[in-house]
This record gives sequence, C-alpha cells and structure tokens, in this order.
Amino acid sequence: MESATFVQALNLLGTLVFALSGAAAGVRQRMDIFGVLVLAFVTAVAGGVLRDLLIGATPPASITNWHALAISAAGGLFAFWFSAVIDRLRFPVELFDAAGLGIFATTGTQKALEYGIPPVMATILGMVTGIGGGMVRDLLSARMPIVLYSEFYAMAALAGSAVVTVGNALGMPVAATLLPGTALCVLLRVLALYHGFGLPHPRRRDDEPSDR
Amino acid sequence: MESATFVQALNLLGTLVFALSGAAAGVRQRMDIFGVLVLAFVTAVAGGVLRDLLIGATPPASITNWHALAISAAGGLFAFWFSAVIDRLRFPVELFDAAGLGIFATTGTQKALEYGIPPVMATILGMVTGIGGGMVRDLLSARMPIVLYSEFYAMAALAGSAVVTVGNALGMPVAATLLPGTALCVLLRVLALYHGFGLPHPRRRDDEPSDR
Amino acid sequence: MESATFVQALNLLGTLVFALSGAAAGVRQRMDIFGVLVLAFVTAVAGGVLRDLLIGATPPASITNWHALAISAAGGLFAFWFSAVIDRLRFPVELFDAAGLGIFATTGTQKALEYGIPPVMATILGMVTGIGGGMVRDLLSARMPIVLYSEFYAMAALAGSAVVTVGNALGMPVAATLLPGTALCVLLRVLALYHGFGLPHPRRRDDEPSDR
Repeated sequence: MESATFVQALNLLGTLVFALSGAAAGVRQRMDIFGVLVLAFVTAVAGGVLRDLLIGATPPASITNWHALAISAAGGLFAFWFSAVIDRLRFPVELFDAAGLGIFATTGTQKALEYGIPPVMATILGMVTGIGGGMVRDLLSARMPIVLYSEFYAMAALAGSAVVTVGNALGMPVAATLLPGTALCVLLRVLALYHGFGLPHPRRRDDEPSDR
Repeated sequence: MESATFVQALNLLGTLVFALSGAAAGVRQRMDIFGVLVLAFVTAVAGGVLRDLLIGATPPASITNWHALAISAAGGLFAFWFSAVIDRLRFPVELFDAAGLGIFATTGTQKALEYGIPPVMATILGMVTGIGGGMVRDLLSARMPIVLYSEFYAMAALAGSAVVTVGNALGMPVAATLLPGTALCVLLRVLALYHGFGLPHPRRRDDEPSDR
Repeated sequence: MESATFVQALNLLGTLVFALSGAAAGVRQRMDIFGVLVLAFVTAVAGGVLRDLLIGATPPASITNWHALAISAAGGLFAFWFSAVIDRLRFPVELFDAAGLGIFATTGTQKALEYGIPPVMATILGMVTGIGGGMVRDLLSARMPIVLYSEFYAMAALAGSAVVTVGNALGMPVAATLLPGTALCVLLRVLALYHGFGLPHPRRRDDEPSDR
C-alpha cells in the first residue's frame, strides 16, 4: 500500500530526530555510551510503544523489527561523538524535534483510529504518541517532564492530531491529513519557541513563598 | 446489568476525586494548565490502566470512551481555578481521596477476579489499582512515591481489596462486598491520618548519619 | 517438560536475589516495611512484566500465580529485619545480583524467541528483562537509573542474551545456552566490579563547568 509506505517513511524520520533529542539529553547528563544509546532508543520509541500497549497492538512494531533500533543507534552514536555540533545547531535541532512531534502525533492518531478508538480519545492518544518519548526521557533523567510545566509543546501535538481526526471524519485520504497536521504542529511549535507564548500558570498568592 | 451500573457509578466518583488530588499536586508544582490537566487525568486513570494492561483487558475503558477524560478535565479545571478553595478544604479532600482509594481498590479486585486472576493476586491488583494513580502522579512530579515511605495508605487499600476477595470466595453478591470493602478502607485511612499511626521503619543504627 | 522446569527454577532463584537487592535499596531510603516489600516485589518482577507486556504474553506469570510474590516477600522481610547482615555481605550480594541479571537476561531472551521475536530484538528484550527491575527500583527511589551512567552492567546482560540467541540459531538445546550465557554475564559483571572498567563517557569540553 502506498499510504502505508508513506506513513512508515514519516515514522522512520520521526524516530531519527527523536533519537537525536534523547541522545543529546543523555550527553548533557554525562551518561556513558550505553546510557546515551538507551535514551536515544527510548525517546524514539516510548510514545509509540505506550500507544500500542494501550490500543492492544502488541507486540509493537519497534520491538518486532530492528529498524527503530538501528536508526536510533545511528542517531545516538552521532550525538555521542559530535555533541559539540548538536549544541551549536540549536535551531535545526528544535525544528527536527518539532517535526518528530508532529509526525508521531498525526501517525499515532491515524493508527488509533484504525484500531477503532473513537475520535476524541484517538486525538489524545496521538498527542501521547508525540509527547510520550520526551516524558520517558525526562523521567529516566530524574527530572519532572518539561512538557508538564512549560512550553507550548503538547498543545501543538494536540492541534496536529485534531487535524487528522477531523480529516478522517470528513472522509479525506490519509496523506491529505497527515501532512497538514504535521505542518500545523511544527508551525505552532516554532511560533511558541520564537515568540515565547505559553499556557497560563496558576496564580501565585501573596502569602505564598516563591518556590521556583 | 444493575451491578455493572453500580460499579461504573462508583468508578466515575473515584475518577473525580483522584483527578482533584492529581490536579492539586500539579498546582502545587506550578505546572501550566496543560500539566495540571495531564496530572488530573493520569492520577485518575493510571491505576486502572496498569491493572488492565496486566490482566490483558486492552484497550482499557478509560481509553476507549471519553467519560474519564471529561470528568478529570472538569476536576482539573476546578482545581486550577479554585486552588485556594482546595487548600482550605483539607479534610474533605483527604476524605474524598480515601473514598477514591477504597473505590478503586475494591472495584479493581472485582475486575481482576472476573478475569480469572486467583484470589491472592487479585487482592494485590486491587491495591495496585488504588495506589497506582498516586504513584504515577508522584513520579511525574519527580518525587519518590509517598506511599512507599509514609502513611498507612496502601494497607488500607489492601484491607478493602481483601474484603472483596473473601466475600467473592463466600459467594456473596458484588455490591455486598464493594461497599463494606470501601468503607473499611476509608475508616482505616481516616484513623491513620488523625491518629498518626503508620508502619514500622527499619531501625537506624547508631553508627549511621541521619540522612532525612 | 524438563527444560521448562529448569527455566522456572532458575527464574525463582533470580526472583529471590533481585528481591533482596530491591529491599536493600528500600531500607537505605528509610522506607516503611510496606515500601520495602513493594520495592522487593517490583525489582524482582518489573523486567519480566515489561517483557511480557511488550511481546503480548498477558497476563504475566508473576501476576497469575503467587510464587514471585511469596518469594519476594520472604526476601523483603529478610532484608528488612537483617539489613545489617546485608550491608556486611557486600560481595555475596553483588554476586547474587549478577546471577539474577544473567538468569533474567538469558531466560528473557529464550521466552522472546519462543514468542517469535526476531533474534536481534529478542537479545535486546533479554537485556531489558535483566535490567528492567533495577531501573524501576531506581525510578521509584527518585534516582536516575544507575545502569544509565555507570558500571558495565547492561553490557554484561547483553552478552549473556547474545549467547542464547546464537545458541538458538545453531539449534543447540535450551539448557546448553542458558547456563553458559548466565555464566558469561556473571563473569563480565564481576570483572567489571573488581577491575573497575566501564564504558566511555562523552568528552568534557574545557569551557564547561563540572556538574557532577
């Protein structure tokens, strides 16, 4: 099937950019090369694995074939040896990460819909597919997941997922929803990064000490 | 079925009170509104999702329909906007949390028994259903799960679960075990909170520095 | 089947030594007796449960029967009451932990192969079975998993797993691969512990502050 091949190619690209993001976090934490490779692999596949466990699609594809493993190992080794390069290329890295977020959110939504999950929850599961890898990466680094307290990150994934759900309800072909959904996610994410907008935080009361 | 409706109504009540508890933790951590909503949802459903994954009941109900999502969103928004109210109502919040614990522990045990899990492990899985949400809430806040080092919390859930297992072995109807099990859990929990009893800690040896 | 009995006996031994290791960590964190028992059980079964969820073997054996629970409760109580003994017996504890690592890595690989997972990924899943319990133990203690940043731990598990995969490809009987695989893992682990070799870390650049 052509559309399946297209989804698969998108997924491998998302795997690579998320592996780079995970490996960069491992390098910053001074992990050894094994830790860096684990963080690359886990960041790349955790969102999809979580979605597959939740919709009952076991074993997940990233476990039954070695493609995701090979791609994330390549990304992890690159980030380990050329960490200075990755530090300098902050803008491309952020852009790639936004692309991975959009790809995983939209293809995750599509897969959940194909497994018969109703629209609202399929949109949520798409977002989980997008943000899950980064959350596990942060937990393994013993940090609170960054997505929970800052940055317009999950909302961008949710918007991309919603495009797929709506397109599906309108009977549009798959490719015609995945690409615009991914593009919307990337656009929102880049706007948020460079214009610094975020979501409201709880109001701090006067009688309260500042704890961050 | 009447008994299934009853179990479902209990579960929705448990979902609401656990969502409030999760959202309150998110507000204390100064998360943005998205983080608060995620913590509300995860605290409300993680115990049940974990149980369903372990007994092979996929996809879990909280994923295939939007009830838990809607209820925890409502609870999360309330806690976000009225966090001062929740702070002041410490006793009702603790009571609601104990009720959620008991509800999830007993209905979790019942579901595990229905899936053919043997009595001892069904009791454990009921306890996991009760305490799982709070553990994931603490992990996402990068804290050690409070249930592991203080408070007579898990034991209360275990006692409630045991009531259901014993009642089931005696052939009692479901409602006649869920309500007393929940009540026992709430009672033990409230007694523990207001009389400060807990479980023994390892003896501190004299030659050891105090590290907490 | 004789070979299945053999694998099961090995697994129960691995369960006991990992339960001791988890309980010892709980004692060090000053958890109460419940926390210590939870950490014993989780450390003992988390690797196998994770593997079973990933290959679709639900419900996992450690949930459907009470053997692992009883063994880890015994190990947990022993570690709770005799923590001074465990502290003094550092060498036997490390040796037992290495044995548990090797047993879980090799039997985990074997099970993944039996479920039709291809060789490379079965080797990885074996390693995950071996290191998963310790990673969850560290996460529940709110620490970064030690396996990610130090010690030649995961590599020893990977080597043991690889012995099983290669032996399986050569058509060797199960016991003839499990024992040498476990022995290789123990040997590598003990050598690493007592000769202090590890994996390369990322190079620290001159312009960077030391943060560990």
